[in-house]
Amino acid sequence: MTSAPSVSSSITVRLEVVARPTAVSELTTSIEHTGGIVTGLDVTASHSDHISVDVTCATRGDAHATEIVDALRAIPGVKVGPVSDRTFLLHLGGKLRIESKVPIRNRDDLSMIYTPGVARVCQAIAKNPEDARRLTIKRNTIAVVTDGTAVLGLGDIGPLASLPVMEGKAALFKRFADIDAFPIALDTTDVDEIVAAVKAIAPVFAGINLEDISAPRCFEVERRLRAELDIPVFHDDQHGTAIVALAALTNALIVVGKSLPDVKIVLSGAGAAGTAVLKLLLAAGARDVVVADIDGVIYPGRPDLAESLVWTAENTNPRGFTGTLKEALAGADVFIGVSAPNVITGDDVATMAEDSIVFAMANPSPEVDPDEAAKHAAIVGTGRSDFANQINNVLAFPGVFRGLIDARSSKVTEPLLLAAAKALAAVIHEDELNPTYIVPSVFNPEVTTLVAAAVEATARAEAEADAAAAAASA
Amino acid sequence: MTSAPSVSSSITVRLEVVARPTAVSELTTSIEHTGGIVTGLDVTASHSDHISVDVTCATRGDAHATEIVDALRAIPGVKVGPVSDRTFLLHLGGKLRIESKVPIRNRDDLSMIYTPGVARVCQAIAKNPEDARRLTIKRNTIAVVTDGTAVLGLGDIGPLASLPVMEGKAALFKRFADIDAFPIALDTTDVDEIVAAVKAIAPVFAGINLEDISAPRCFEVERRLRAELDIPVFHDDQHGTAIVALAALTNALIVVGKSLPDVKIVLSGAGAAGTAVLKLLLAAGARDVVVADIDGVIYPGRPDLAESLVWTAENTNPRGFTGTLKEALAGADVFIGVSAPNVITGDDVATMAEDSIVFAMANPSPEVDPDEAAKHAAIVGTGRSDFANQINNVLAFPGVFRGLIDARSSKVTEPLLLAAAKALAAVIHEDELNPTYIVPSVFNPEVTTLVAAAVEATARAEAEADAAAAAASA
Repeated sequence: MTSAPSVSSSITVRLEVVARPTAVSELTTSIEHTGGIVTGLDVTASHSDHISVDVTCATRGDAHATEIVDALRAIPGVKVGPVSDRTFLLHLGGKLRIESKVPIRNRDDLSMIYTPGVARVCQAIAKNPEDARRLTIKRNTIAVVTDGTAVLGLGDIGPLASLPVMEGKAALFKRFADIDAFPIALDTTDVDEIVAAVKAIAPVFAGINLEDISAPRCFEVERRLRAELDIPVFHDDQHGTAIVALAALTNALIVVGKSLPDVKIVLSGAGAAGTAVLKLLLAAGARDVVVADIDGVIYPGRPDLAESLVWTAENTNPRGFTGTLKEALAGADVFIGVSAPNVITGDDVATMAEDSIVFAMANPSPEVDPDEAAKHAAIVGTGRSDFANQINNVLAFPGVFRGLIDARSSKVTEPLLLAAAKALAAVIHEDELNPTYIVPSVFNPEVTTLVAAAVEATARAEAEADAAAAAASA
Repeated sequence: MTSAPSVSSSITVRLEVVARPTAVSELTTSIEHTGGIVTGLDVTASHSDHISVDVTCATRGDAHATEIVDALRAIPGVKVGPVSDRTFLLHLGGKLRIESKVPIRNRDDLSMIYTPGVARVCQAIAKNPEDARRLTIKRNTIAVVTDGTAVLGLGDIGPLASLPVMEGKAALFKRFADIDAFPIALDTTDVDEIVAAVKAIAPVFAGINLEDISAPRCFEVERRLRAELDIPVFHDDQHGTAIVALAALTNALIVVGKSLPDVKIVLSGAGAAGTAVLKLLLAAGARDVVVADIDGVIYPGRPDLAESLVWTAENTNPRGFTGTLKEALAGADVFIGVSAPNVITGDDVATMAEDSIVFAMANPSPEVDPDEAAKHAAIVGTGRSDFANQINNVLAFPGVFRGLIDARSSKVTEPLLLAAAKALAAVIHEDELNPTYIVPSVFNPEVTTLVAAAVEATARAEAEADAAAAAASA
């Protein structure tokens, strides 16, 4: 797999350079020879004998950045000053701010937003609690809740270190769905304590987005919170991934002219994401799914089968396959990976059926080198932004929560997830579909609006059906 | 006490009025006759035979508003349309919003604020947790935590109904100290559960402001959180009130030429605020304080003395007084009320010493009619904005937290509270002091900056002393 310099590892180097005709070109040439990509160059001051220059360039990471700075230092007449990391600069002081929507200019303003005027608003809510959705930030605010145990590919780094991700997620909620989201990074990994804490803080929120909580604890946390809260609970690592994977597969199958009930699917990964993808695939009509984890294909009676995998064993693998992941690939139409880097090779993909589909979603290193996979598969998707067909949760969670909030929904159901996937797939018209364009850009504004509309409509229909059923049984 | 119309109970009435020369003056005259105060009048549309008018007026409350609307309706040729409540309009959708500080315009932005770039920031914090104060919103974010049990004068209205107050408090933190504050309204009144929930959510916050938690639970909640958290915990109803009361008393004593160690003080109220005011008065040098609650003056051996009052009984009342609150007032120099409406009268104030000071801080109805008290006392203060000398917590909590955050403080101590009170009192120069001006306006920008500077300096000095003591004992 090509390792290209990334803007996410950009540095800005402040330099003093002896004034001579080739001064600037020597800098850029040096950086390019070292494999960096210059993305900005400012002469910030000029003197009779030297100039001050800020050079910004994308690197392949910290070691590469050091290499580039050393190369610059080696140029005669160049003095290296402070080196700053653009990503770190962007995170300084955190990425969110809380603003007052109301002006506080004088005592009159104070008397309305605070005492004594606020008392009447409190009394109205005490009388009719549903008014909190109208008169407080509960109308549009959700929590992004983690315990810091499964953050990105970094694992259990704890609540403090998880904060940059949770803040980023909150920023995405604002950018893509105009939702106010606040990061709650819990200082406990105990399921009972997580459930108790989230229940305790629930009143101010219209929904809970669980994030980066490791399996299998995440299943119990979600199940119990859904049972005990009157607001929707959505574990993005599970359901966000499942929605986007199903949407991408829906479009990919159109491109290759196959149908979901008929294809053979191999799913690598039986953790939070894998289990959710599996359940949504089955709900959508898939019939032949073989799931593999680190110990190979899952089947009933596999030695030492974990409790959490029993459901998977009993509800997949209709042909009773018992081999390895690689063996399972032979003749399969679809590979979906939500597991670990490099578990299969291009040669393994070559054993799949004609017009195969490969979604290698492990991040940042996919289950198979996408360039290698593309030599044999008809369609390849990854979780990365530097390849075609990025299967990215940002395509789902903003619209899902926008729809849930707008419907004042209290729960997340399977029909709702299916509706979200269908709406997301339909953002791309059939005449636009091709092997390198099966999912829309996250910056396509229709993504959020169409997903939100589908989720809201489904949630409202379900609420009406529930009300009708309750009335009938009363 | 005069009950004047308040902007906090303003209504806007939409009217259709038959076009005639006196049309507008008839409306304003009618409102003024009914006791309302017209604060705005807009002709929004004009037709050949009638005009559309929006009239905004301050009222004395809901019943008075109805009276005003009825009076308008009784005018011939006037048709009353929708009536809206300005305070409710201001609260629609809540009073806070969460914004992203960083732009998300394209994939490059995404790659820096979210994956993959964010991973390096997470790793930096995992390696050095103190970096969370630099690279996340922990740098400037606090929680406003309540359980909704003692909200304003409304009592136990629950977490949902408390939200408008907590949001207002957060808005004040932003307005007066540029602090990002988020409301946490807990769905539990159990001390163990409150402590567990606040501990669980603590990582993202630089401080905890406890608010409107009823006594005596608030004492245990604060004590345990202070012992178990590494960020400062401040119960505003206690310490904010105490700081402002002490500051006001400091200046009032200068005006009347008396000194704190020498004056006889009667304190009405032994709840959260009363206890905190008492402790800070004693720490500041007061020696003769008599405390009364609903059962009269507190002394050791009083029948059925509550556990929470034993400390008060043992540390006050040096003259062993055992009578009623009113009897205790005879000859006293200072009355401070943080209790209930109308517990004393002007005649009681008349029994106090020459040049007496009366702070009647119960809200919205003070312990004594301030107009009556002013007939006998040299200086009168209340918690209300419509009388001179408003003793308002907004004078303390923004600066206190600004100072705590800037010092990266982990605790709130008595010297720190005393420093805050001293700094607040000193905002008014001695040559500006007079009986109607002992506390500055909340809109005076020096209030926050001077209180914050004093708190930060004290917190830093304490941290240095702690470090020196630890080094000496090591």
